[in-house]
Amino acid sequence: MTLIEQLIAATDASRVLTQHEDLVVYGFDGTAALKEMPAVVVLPRNTQEVAACVKIARAASVPVVTRGSGTGLSGGSVPLPGCVVLTLVKMDKIIELDEANLTLRAQCGVITKEIDDAAGRVGLFYPPDPGSMKISTIGGNVAENSGGLRGLKYGVTRDYVMGMEVVLPTGEIVWLGNKCVKDVAGYSMKDLFIGSEGTLGIITEVLLKLVPKPKARRTMLALYDTMEAAAETISAIIAAKIIPCTLEFLDRMTVKCVEDFARIGLPVDVEAVVLMETDGHPAAVEEEASQMMDLARKHGAREVKMAQSEAEGATLASARRSAFSALARMKPTTILEDVTVPRSELTHMVKFINDCAARRGLMIGTFGHMGDGNLHPTFLTDERNHEEMHRVEEALEEIVDETLRLGGTVTGEHGVGLAKKRFLRKQMGDGSYELMRSVKMALDPDALLNPGKIFDLKSAS
Amino acid sequence: MTLIEQLIAATDASRVLTQHEDLVVYGFDGTAALKEMPAVVVLPRNTQEVAACVKIARAASVPVVTRGSGTGLSGGSVPLPGCVVLTLVKMDKIIELDEANLTLRAQCGVITKEIDDAAGRVGLFYPPDPGSMKISTIGGNVAENSGGLRGLKYGVTRDYVMGMEVVLPTGEIVWLGNKCVKDVAGYSMKDLFIGSEGTLGIITEVLLKLVPKPKARRTMLALYDTMEAAAETISAIIAAKIIPCTLEFLDRMTVKCVEDFARIGLPVDVEAVVLMETDGHPAAVEEEASQMMDLARKHGAREVKMAQSEAEGATLASARRSAFSALARMKPTTILEDVTVPRSELTHMVKFINDCAARRGLMIGTFGHMGDGNLHPTFLTDERNHEEMHRVEEALEEIVDETLRLGGTVTGEHGVGLAKKRFLRKQMGDGSYELMRSVKMALDPDALLNPGKIFDLKSAS
Repeated sequence: MTLIEQLIAATDASRVLTQHEDLVVYGFDGTAALKEMPAVVVLPRNTQEVAACVKIARAASVPVVTRGSGTGLSGGSVPLPGCVVLTLVKMDKIIELDEANLTLRAQCGVITKEIDDAAGRVGLFYPPDPGSMKISTIGGNVAENSGGLRGLKYGVTRDYVMGMEVVLPTGEIVWLGNKCVKDVAGYSMKDLFIGSEGTLGIITEVLLKLVPKPKARRTMLALYDTMEAAAETISAIIAAKIIPCTLEFLDRMTVKCVEDFARIGLPVDVEAVVLMETDGHPAAVEEEASQMMDLARKHGAREVKMAQSEAEGATLASARRSAFSALARMKPTTILEDVTVPRSELTHMVKFINDCAARRGLMIGTFGHMGDGNLHPTFLTDERNHEEMHRVEEALEEIVDETLRLGGTVTGEHGVGLAKKRFLRKQMGDGSYELMRSVKMALDPDALLNPGKIFDLKSAS
Repeated sequence: MTLIEQLIAATDASRVLTQHEDLVVYGFDGTAALKEMPAVVVLPRNTQEVAACVKIARAASVPVVTRGSGTGLSGGSVPLPGCVVLTLVKMDKIIELDEANLTLRAQCGVITKEIDDAAGRVGLFYPPDPGSMKISTIGGNVAENSGGLRGLKYGVTRDYVMGMEVVLPTGEIVWLGNKCVKDVAGYSMKDLFIGSEGTLGIITEVLLKLVPKPKARRTMLALYDTMEAAAETISAIIAAKIIPCTLEFLDRMTVKCVEDFARIGLPVDVEAVVLMETDGHPAAVEEEASQMMDLARKHGAREVKMAQSEAEGATLASARRSAFSALARMKPTTILEDVTVPRSELTHMVKFINDCAARRGLMIGTFGHMGDGNLHPTFLTDERNHEEMHRVEEALEEIVDETLRLGGTVTGEHGVGLAKKRFLRKQMGDGSYELMRSVKMALDPDALLNPGKIFDLKSAS
């Protein structure tokens, strides 16, 4: 039997795509300027089908690329030419919500927002909220260790994964973790798979931790004439021992684009807009919100508004939530970067990015997570303009170098994929980099799964 | 040069111990009935010395066993006959407390309580509080992924490790992680080292996350005539969406021993004593404490006391804190177990342990972490009584089987070490077990570091 015939036998003909017009939509993800055509796309319905497909691909020595909703921003789900793509969106069942143990078990293809909605219906909460949560899958979130707007207080996806089912590169199915709040039996293999971007195994099921839903929330927006004043406010909030759930910012260019797009009523002459949210017990929230407003004013905010209702809070938050879409309208190509620095270095880094844009004649709008130092400098460009793309590349190199000099990381939440590969050794150092490669060599020596993502296995660089 | 001469050259003569009377204290840790004599004990002062010692041992093919304060309860720091022991207690400097980024960097030999004390002096808090925290080292805590009394709300050591310096089995020094709240650049190798019990590398420095110190705390003690009533209270608290920082229990035998030992004034005819603590914003704490007291009464508590001062709170907490010492006085040998089940299975498990003790004529006192399902059945026995030790072994097998049947783990916080090795494959299943072994094979193929801990590398079982 041919590879295609075998894949059909393992699943069914309606879920094995081979026509060019069917394949083309699986040739790219949310990352600019990266596309390739796979040989075949399979949509498995369960773990056994995933395992069977892996065994078939292995026997034929054809690489496998995995994919959820394809919202990734580092090329992690971009195919290799001629590969098998496994698209896991049909594995979309929530298997169990265990209120006594505060856990939820789901197949990998469940949309992240559906997880939080299911939790919400019983008064619980799944905190990680990547920008893509309305369309991205939980399996993709776990494979990428997705972040979101609540990182400072609630952490990231990793902090909510208690267990998972994984199909290994051999096609073997293993279960890692359990419902125990504490478990130190052996190495935490689940933590190795979280954020491994599909290069070590295929996550087919997840067991997630839930927390009680906060009883109250307050949303505020502060407008600043300088980025320094905004950053000083954040430092003052932390120094006052307040850990808000959200501390987000938009720079001047992003504010302009957002206002153009969403007509929220933001003044377009501000240097920074900061979205602040605190949640928890009502008394704590009221007290913290009032302290945060005072600190914002004291540190030079031109204006501070507090939402008087949940709906108004959602409107204020939409300024931040729409930042990427608003920026993406401006130019044909949007390159969303993800450098992250220790929080104390954030003002310096934003200024560095702005200087860099000015010096090189580039449009860069920056927004991101002020509380956790995770910046999204967004290059507005045109991939057909090779000269400008060259300047974009140079600017990016410069921004990465400065990020690493400050003890930061080239990716806070989007992953390495194909887009950040070339920076990884520089960030990690030779020793850590080779250590990581040795783990891939041990688990997937033939580079069957997502080869060439994160790093190249075969070459030494 | 001989091995000893080389080790002296790499450090200095005063820190290389070879005399029998010097070595004997390094021959055991907190685990009953396990001891072996090393060939030599070295006390390095810095990472370079650790790396030099590893290289020397590697060249001589002599295994290395690492050790902090030796408080481990699974034999993780028990030497191999003739090995080199590296005792890391002289690497005891706090290097940096970064208030802006809420991080603390320390050498591995710093006592855990000193970390929390240093944080406390600037209004911050290091939540993990293993029972040994007044004497155990932070490096040991990270290597074992230590738990403590605050697991349900605050998590365990893993949740507070942002980075670490590690000496690899090659003697190479690598740094993993950074001060970024979000970082997804490559595999999370630090998470692989956390809880790897010294079998993959030697943790020489750690970068820890701190949180603001809770502004208020309330401590309560509830007395119950049945374990079921105690467990129902815990379930009701969780169902009310309250996550207390501490929910600890002592069973009847433990209460008797504690009262004998500490004279706190506990009635010795109760079936369960539950210690409850809530912390956070003062208004939230008052409200939650009052709800918890009501729920305890409603679910059949004979008596519920709330501490009226911090000192009184400490007295109530001392009932739980002294449980192990109180039990350990009763018989020559104390075997402290660490099975953990999903919280919903806790009552069943406690009853199973009590039945098992009665059936086999054994003394088992059980206490532990009711909020996170982490039980410490404590066998009071005499290792010289071979017949009784045989019954202890049988009881332990039975308890482990039931734990695994309920989806639990053989160790919630003490580690596998030597003591739990034989249960690990049964818990993990062949696939996960071999996956874990393949990582050890990749990182330490010669089994230089802590060989025979967690699993045997060479044999297939």
